[in-house]
Amino acid sequence: MTEVLEGDETVTLKVLKQKMHDFAQERDWERHHSPRNLLLALVGEVGELSEIFQWKGEVAKGLPDWKEEEKVHLGEELSDVLLYLVRLSDICGIDLGQAALRKIRLNAIKYPIPDPTPTPKP
Amino acid sequence: MTEVLEGDETVTLKVLKQKMHDFAQERDWERHHSPRNLLLALVGEVGELSEIFQWKGEVAKGLPDWKEEEKVHLGEELSDVLLYLVRLSDICGIDLGQAALRKIRLNAIKYPIPDPTPTPKP
Amino acid sequence: MTEVLEGDETVTLKVLKQKMHDFAQERDWERHHSPRNLLLALVGEVGELSEIFQWKGEVAKGLPDWKEEEKVHLGEELSDVLLYLVRLSDICGIDLGQAALRKIRLNAIKYPIPDPTPTPKP
Amino acid sequence: MTEVLEGDETVTLKVLKQKMHDFAQERDWERHHSPRNLLLALVGEVGELSEIFQWKGEVAKGLPDWKEEEKVHLGEELSDVLLYLVRLSDICGIDLGQAALRKIRLNAIKYPIPDPTPTPKP
Repeated sequence: MTEVLEGDETVTLKVLKQKMHDFAQERDWERHHSPRNLLLALVGEVGELSEIFQWKGEVAKGLPDWKEEEKVHLGEELSDVLLYLVRLSDICGIDLGQAALRKIRLNAIKYPIPDPTPTPKP
Repeated sequence: MTEVLEGDETVTLKVLKQKMHDFAQERDWERHHSPRNLLLALVGEVGELSEIFQWKGEVAKGLPDWKEEEKVHLGEELSDVLLYLVRLSDICGIDLGQAALRKIRLNAIKYPIPDPTPTPKP
Repeated sequence: MTEVLEGDETVTLKVLKQKMHDFAQERDWERHHSPRNLLLALVGEVGELSEIFQWKGEVAKGLPDWKEEEKVHLGEELSDVLLYLVRLSDICGIDLGQAALRKIRLNAIKYPIPDPTPTPKP
Repeated sequence: MTEVLEGDETVTLKVLKQKMHDFAQERDWERHHSPRNLLLALVGEVGELSEIFQWKGEVAKGLPDWKEEEKVHLGEELSDVLLYLVRLSDICGIDLGQAALRKIRLNAIKYPIPDPTPTPKP
């Protein structure tokens, strides 16, 4: 059961893309996976993610007051968004990993690191 | 410039998580990155992603009729959703890669592969 | 049972606002109705609305192929979005009817009616 | 300029439906207004609405700390969601006012008013 140990450190976008591709193919779901169908499915999952947070007021980082089962549920909804996003990218022919690295570089240009506070001269 | 070559094959969720963490820390943005702030930012990006598709009617797989600049724009919006999703997961203390693999396994149980059509006996 | 006959012709935004206000007050739900809680609830309902359309491919105007029960379900999800939108506006102190009329006037300025094709002179 | 005085008290859903219908017809936009196009446009506007709230942390009822221009902007985004929702309902052949009143009645059955705390007997 090595798979249980896998996580952010080892999971590439390609792994998820391949698994989603195989999942759809094995179930003959590819005919349903048009770009706009997948986009609306993604919006549906974002709705479910929002429902988890909707009546909670402000939520602290790390979710210190959440029950374990709530965290598991949150992980499922975050995953559903991710999996449809990966699948939508694949169906559109976009390399999401490459696009994400490029976007981070663009963001770094748009929002440069501010200068540190200058040391006052003596 | 090896980074240009990186993409889905090499980009792990950890890489993106680390880059988003560093990006926020270098700009002193961590105080803005509460779970619900990030969730609403993600919803905002899903809106921008939807705007790309809103007046297009049905869109074919692979986007054969799209201009290159439209595909680049799409890659940016897909990335924005991904980056906020990765950041939201991190701030909530969820290992998104592990959760996504688990969700795929749950989906496989929920939607078993249908039996192939049996070969008719002679 | 006059209420069954009411609909778009008679229902003002004020009627819905008042009903949502009374509904929340009678159930002591006002403490849950903060702006961001209501916004996330609205996003949740937009997700449920999207789920109705997600696997349908392009849908024709008037929904000619939909079953009656699907249309009823659609009416419920459209309503949920409307009711949270009305409630969110009220809690934010925004007169939604006035704002909507103003927005239509702004849109008419932004997108002027195109000139009709001129009649060719003989 | 009586129109400026109009608002929640007088604006019916039919008024908005008629204005949206005329607006589209005058600009020959009806061919763009398919159900899924309008739905994605609505999602886009919900994204813009969310952006207003995304970095604000918890927001108090009545928006006491907001500048007037922020409230005007909020009214515009709330309106955009409403107008696409009204238009989507119209294009789908749903009487949104009737559906909303029905949904409130269903909600009242689903969530009955709790009994008041009983008066303790002497």
